[in-house]
Amino acid sequence: MNYRFSDTIESFKSSAVREILKLTQGKSIISLAGGLPNEQYFPIEAVKDAFARVFDEGKQVLQYGLTEGFTPLREDIAKHLERKNIRVGIDEMLLTTGSQQAIDLLTRVYIDPGDIILVERPTYLAAIQIFQSRKANIISVDCDDEGMILSDLEAKIKRHNPKMIYVIPTFSNPSGKVWSLERRQGTLELCKRSNVLILEDDPYGELRFGGGEAMPSLFSLDEHPGGCVVYTSTFSKIVAPALRTGWIIGDPQLIVHMTRAKQAADLHSSSMDQQALHQLFLHFDLYGHIDLVRREYEGRMRQMVELLKQQDWPDTRWIEPKGGMFIWLEMPERINTEELLKLAVQEGVAFVPGVSFFATEPQYNTMRLNFTHTDSQQMIEGIERLNRAIRKVL
Amino acid sequence: MNYRFSDTIESFKSSAVREILKLTQGKSIISLAGGLPNEQYFPIEAVKDAFARVFDEGKQVLQYGLTEGFTPLREDIAKHLERKNIRVGIDEMLLTTGSQQAIDLLTRVYIDPGDIILVERPTYLAAIQIFQSRKANIISVDCDDEGMILSDLEAKIKRHNPKMIYVIPTFSNPSGKVWSLERRQGTLELCKRSNVLILEDDPYGELRFGGGEAMPSLFSLDEHPGGCVVYTSTFSKIVAPALRTGWIIGDPQLIVHMTRAKQAADLHSSSMDQQALHQLFLHFDLYGHIDLVRREYEGRMRQMVELLKQQDWPDTRWIEPKGGMFIWLEMPERINTEELLKLAVQEGVAFVPGVSFFATEPQYNTMRLNFTHTDSQQMIEGIERLNRAIRKVL
Repeated sequence: MNYRFSDTIESFKSSAVREILKLTQGKSIISLAGGLPNEQYFPIEAVKDAFARVFDEGKQVLQYGLTEGFTPLREDIAKHLERKNIRVGIDEMLLTTGSQQAIDLLTRVYIDPGDIILVERPTYLAAIQIFQSRKANIISVDCDDEGMILSDLEAKIKRHNPKMIYVIPTFSNPSGKVWSLERRQGTLELCKRSNVLILEDDPYGELRFGGGEAMPSLFSLDEHPGGCVVYTSTFSKIVAPALRTGWIIGDPQLIVHMTRAKQAADLHSSSMDQQALHQLFLHFDLYGHIDLVRREYEGRMRQMVELLKQQDWPDTRWIEPKGGMFIWLEMPERINTEELLKLAVQEGVAFVPGVSFFATEPQYNTMRLNFTHTDSQQMIEGIERLNRAIRKVL
Repeated sequence: MNYRFSDTIESFKSSAVREILKLTQGKSIISLAGGLPNEQYFPIEAVKDAFARVFDEGKQVLQYGLTEGFTPLREDIAKHLERKNIRVGIDEMLLTTGSQQAIDLLTRVYIDPGDIILVERPTYLAAIQIFQSRKANIISVDCDDEGMILSDLEAKIKRHNPKMIYVIPTFSNPSGKVWSLERRQGTLELCKRSNVLILEDDPYGELRFGGGEAMPSLFSLDEHPGGCVVYTSTFSKIVAPALRTGWIIGDPQLIVHMTRAKQAADLHSSSMDQQALHQLFLHFDLYGHIDLVRREYEGRMRQMVELLKQQDWPDTRWIEPKGGMFIWLEMPERINTEELLKLAVQEGVAFVPGVSFFATEPQYNTMRLNFTHTDSQQMIEGIERLNRAIRKVL
């Protein structure tokens, strides 16, 4: 038959980049492209034990669960958030299938077609996709090394009357940067004044390098309940992605509506994973584990920064990340990284061209490199291969 | 702040019924309301072993998985479907968070606001909710004990040019009925002729009573690929709901678009659950287990039917289900089951009033009773309590 798809499928188009990256699967290509945590640090014995303990509770562990998520795990997360100066009750939290679903559910209940959403320039590509599928108008706010530039944010709020802004203020994907306190407070102030909801996406916040103090989240700087910040995070980067468990916190009104949307979307996320994560909170040194992952990722980051310095590519700029999983490179204007990727794949290395991370007016001379997934030898070889590809286009 | 929700939240409103049923939680109320499988038959030892085996595969089991779902499990399901005369490759299948998510994803990629969807009268309430949240126009087709009445379906296809029809032809929720072969073939024929997509929802098909032959699915009667049927089912009723794993099969074009929509919605469903289900296929007698559940549920159904016969309520009609989890009652016109529910809860028993299962023009004198979740004594007591409530309104 002749299928009559909805208009929405346009926004779910597979990008040229994704098609190129697909080609790299299964081949001896070193990938600096993905956003994968390193398997080496998955606490598999602890997770195995956690699942075994779940079954000790009896057959009811296999029954349908609450849409809101497994109550003891919501309590664990609330306690975990106290360490970040966030105080919420379990009725202010919804558990989701990764934080990706949190973005999707908030978009469903808060955004109508034609609404304006402001985002960082650049920002997380899968968030752009969700907003586009909802037919929102996405407008980028100019950013520097400290976060959104407040004058540009203010001007764009005035001009466009946005309903929401979406930000990753801590160890951003793709740029790896961390916003200064002044930008956090300024953004909050501007949004409060104009009744703009802030979606604060914080998947990487725990992956902080250098042992210093964490920057306060926008959520913790805001009043609550009744505030203008909704905050989402995930266990994917601090425990393991396969368990697909994220959470979103915010005013109970927002949580109630998202919970109803989730009930229609999938009833609830895996209860097995949620129950196992609760057992991990009870019987595993999660914070010791996070410290280990931080140290290891920081070592990899330092190695990659050293390797990049050695290459001496002309007019190439990056910020040394203070956490997270990525280094963001700006190269000479004449380099189009989508074209470069084809050569790089021929040389046996992959990265993500920056173009996908721009909601509008892409910068074609940018790329995102992941430093968490490759081991030391692979990283050396990967950067060498990348260098060979870059030398070809220079 | 003053939250500015999207129009969509209207369709996710909590129903009066849900609010009443919430009141029943934790109290000594016997629930004939839910759609819960019986915990007693959850194969907990096998599931526990399955998870343990997953971890024996090594740390990579905790990494991100494919959006399409764990490949070996898709192969298992394809093989499982051969028993039902369905032959599909793994590129014609997407794994989802329960079949609920399958309905949601198809709706996202196939339905635009204002599109017409035909449904059975009555039909699954959470499907109605998804379609409404997409702002589709839902039109009910008249049904009798054999399924949709073909003359009404034909007239409504001509009149409304629907894009899709949604059906549960085997042991329907809520009506428990099974469509005749003639209605299956007739529906397929009418939809093919008018280019109408059929979403065949089959969560209960395996729960067949009486040991007879299964009715062929609409999917198996259609050509494939390129056919007009998309088919969804789940492990929730044959293994356990906590594992939240369903699947949808159809033409690869449809699967590709749903996969992209799923990538934006949640990247992928729990890989832990999918990998454990694969281990169950390898090391557990799933079909022996399904036989056990069938026998036990059939016994409970017979008990409930006997109890209902004993009550001698006036002008009350039901079909003895040939499978599934529910009995659907039509009572005297003067009984409004939403009003009855309040009295029933006072007596200590709950059911679902039929009104929620109608997309339009609800029949207020209907109710859905679940027979799978209560044990024998509870069921006797539950029907007695229901009888007391009914006697009050008669």
